[in-house]
Amino acid sequence: MARIVQKFGGTSVADIDRIRAVAQRVKRSVDAGDEVAVVVSAMAGTTNQLVEWTREISPMHDAREYDVVVSAGEQITVGLMAMALQNIGVDARSWLGWQIPMVTDDVHGRARIEDVKADEIVRRFGQGQVAVMAGFQGIASDNRITTLGRGGSDTSAVALAAAIDADRCDIFTDVDGIYTSDPRIVTRARKLDRITYEEMLEMASLGAKVLQTRSVELAMNHRVRLQVLSSFIDAPGTLVVDEEEIVEQEIVSGIAHSGNEAKITLVRVPDNPGIAAAIFGPLAEASINVDMIVQNVSEDGKATDLTFTVPKDDLARTLEVLGGQKEKLGFERVEADPDVVKISVVGVGMRSHAGVALRMFKALADKGINIQVISTSEIKISVLVSDAYTELALRSLHTAYGLDAV
Amino acid sequence: MARIVQKFGGTSVADIDRIRAVAQRVKRSVDAGDEVAVVVSAMAGTTNQLVEWTREISPMHDAREYDVVVSAGEQITVGLMAMALQNIGVDARSWLGWQIPMVTDDVHGRARIEDVKADEIVRRFGQGQVAVMAGFQGIASDNRITTLGRGGSDTSAVALAAAIDADRCDIFTDVDGIYTSDPRIVTRARKLDRITYEEMLEMASLGAKVLQTRSVELAMNHRVRLQVLSSFIDAPGTLVVDEEEIVEQEIVSGIAHSGNEAKITLVRVPDNPGIAAAIFGPLAEASINVDMIVQNVSEDGKATDLTFTVPKDDLARTLEVLGGQKEKLGFERVEADPDVVKISVVGVGMRSHAGVALRMFKALADKGINIQVISTSEIKISVLVSDAYTELALRSLHTAYGLDAV
Repeated sequence: MARIVQKFGGTSVADIDRIRAVAQRVKRSVDAGDEVAVVVSAMAGTTNQLVEWTREISPMHDAREYDVVVSAGEQITVGLMAMALQNIGVDARSWLGWQIPMVTDDVHGRARIEDVKADEIVRRFGQGQVAVMAGFQGIASDNRITTLGRGGSDTSAVALAAAIDADRCDIFTDVDGIYTSDPRIVTRARKLDRITYEEMLEMASLGAKVLQTRSVELAMNHRVRLQVLSSFIDAPGTLVVDEEEIVEQEIVSGIAHSGNEAKITLVRVPDNPGIAAAIFGPLAEASINVDMIVQNVSEDGKATDLTFTVPKDDLARTLEVLGGQKEKLGFERVEADPDVVKISVVGVGMRSHAGVALRMFKALADKGINIQVISTSEIKISVLVSDAYTELALRSLHTAYGLDAV
Repeated sequence: MARIVQKFGGTSVADIDRIRAVAQRVKRSVDAGDEVAVVVSAMAGTTNQLVEWTREISPMHDAREYDVVVSAGEQITVGLMAMALQNIGVDARSWLGWQIPMVTDDVHGRARIEDVKADEIVRRFGQGQVAVMAGFQGIASDNRITTLGRGGSDTSAVALAAAIDADRCDIFTDVDGIYTSDPRIVTRARKLDRITYEEMLEMASLGAKVLQTRSVELAMNHRVRLQVLSSFIDAPGTLVVDEEEIVEQEIVSGIAHSGNEAKITLVRVPDNPGIAAAIFGPLAEASINVDMIVQNVSEDGKATDLTFTVPKDDLARTLEVLGGQKEKLGFERVEADPDVVKISVVGVGMRSHAGVALRMFKALADKGINIQVISTSEIKISVLVSDAYTELALRSLHTAYGLDAV
């Protein structure tokens, strides 16, 4: 017997038939003796429709009213899911954010969870009742509905799992787990049985769209064991766990890539103290996320070239901001290149192994792939290369780090 | 300056453009200095979709979960309406049933309102804020959402009006008021400026679909002045008020008709004590509403003919129930006639005037219309006639009682 939170996203509850299928999946866990809390998103498409209506009404709308409108999607799904469970003989009841309550701060539209009072849910586990909780929503101290931001249902599920001290939080999705690399590109990619929170965090922020970064952080902080698995195939997925739970750690767990990058080079920037702050300050004010930054040593001590990346969608805005500062910053010109991809090698094993980066550089050099920018953290190495090499780079690195399925 | 509740039904808020138009209508009252609380239904079609989903999931569903699902419709509208008001410079906020709270009993799906705690809404009137309340929904003592039954938003509006001691409760709808008769049939029908609660109650139960009977009862009990008016045309509608407010009362206020009647005759029923109870007991158990009942005096003291009406939709079920009781009840045969219409003359003035019924019978006789069944109350006379005469009967009576527009 285990206590489990099972979270189902919008595609898993997209219509009545799928809601019925999810109910059957939940029943199997109940029949196996588990205590189950189900967390659901809105039916696929519903949230988009509701958001669209709020935009039509008023582009600059009150975030409190936005939350009232969009939280209706999950309200519909919890009721239907509780009915579907009851219909196959499973005792169940729905819980809205304000009923639990799932207490959040009052930053409407992207609230943070502060407290989950789940005593009543736990008490009802003792009576064999399944809790069906609306994801994505909470309640602020002024008694008004809040939402957690897009994808917030993962975070709701993890917060509930922490509050009820669950043995596991299962995130059901349309993929069957976390892979060593994108299986659509790297045909030899393998599904990982386990991955550490830290690696999952890096993967999530590097372009793997399976889990929201925030939910992984929360799981890591509260040591909630996460499982990513398919809602359509009945098979174990990938466990996201503490490093200590992984007995034989590979050096590298996966190769990620992100095409949403654009490279900017400021040519001949005056090499003065404070110049970096002067450049990146205005970008931060414009909410543009600067990622990889490289500054070359200046040859003449007077001017240097500065290269960095921004999200591709923000390229036009970035050029606009920089153009407005040209006089003040004193650089010669801006060069922009949107045709780049960021390739990252991730693994907690690299902390204790030397030569991990070298193997990456060598593998890329062997294929004649030129590295434009490099950035590293404790458990990942990222390089920027021309996006024409995306597939070649991913496959070569996958082989070089011994990740290929046999 | 007045304090007004304005209620808008599903067709008035059917899409974003109409919600915007309603917001403009509300703004005009605010600009005129009124304190306004807006009550809205779900966007037309939404509730039907939600109800359909609950039926698909499970025909015998938990009414508590049904309420969670269907109340989402009004939640969407209040948020959008508050935004639409804010967008044109009107301070507004949405209120869900549980936020006010609109306290009801725990009969989910058709709950009755017990208490409305509207102090905060009144306090915010003082700050110039418009309250936008979700109709149709409340909260039971167990902290779960309830709904009031179809059309319950009218009742929500009247309950709120009573709680905040409103000067008037305006029910905006797709007709521009209450008419002396159905204007689609009687071209000389006139819009009434005023009508009494009692008359409105009779009209509502006799087929006028403008107001829910329950909301009129509530308005009568709390002396809430109701106005029925068009949400599409900017003109005064019909006031539903206390009899004392009507200075010159006509004898008859209107001629109503209902085609949803079927006539049943049990031929040669044994004329024993208790036979009526034996017949109508099983029908009541089957939730079939029996309306007009006529029992002829038996000629031989042994058997009589018993005639009554039921809603046309329930005719098949009625015949089934009676068929199963034939042996026990001992009647000879059942005759059924669905081709009938109930025509009613309504007016509080008939209390103090003699000859009102006579004028009806005479007008019908003059046109050769045979009266099949008669039933009367203090302020109405209803007759059942062949439905081929519907238009002729309505127009003749309208003229006979001097109601024709000049």
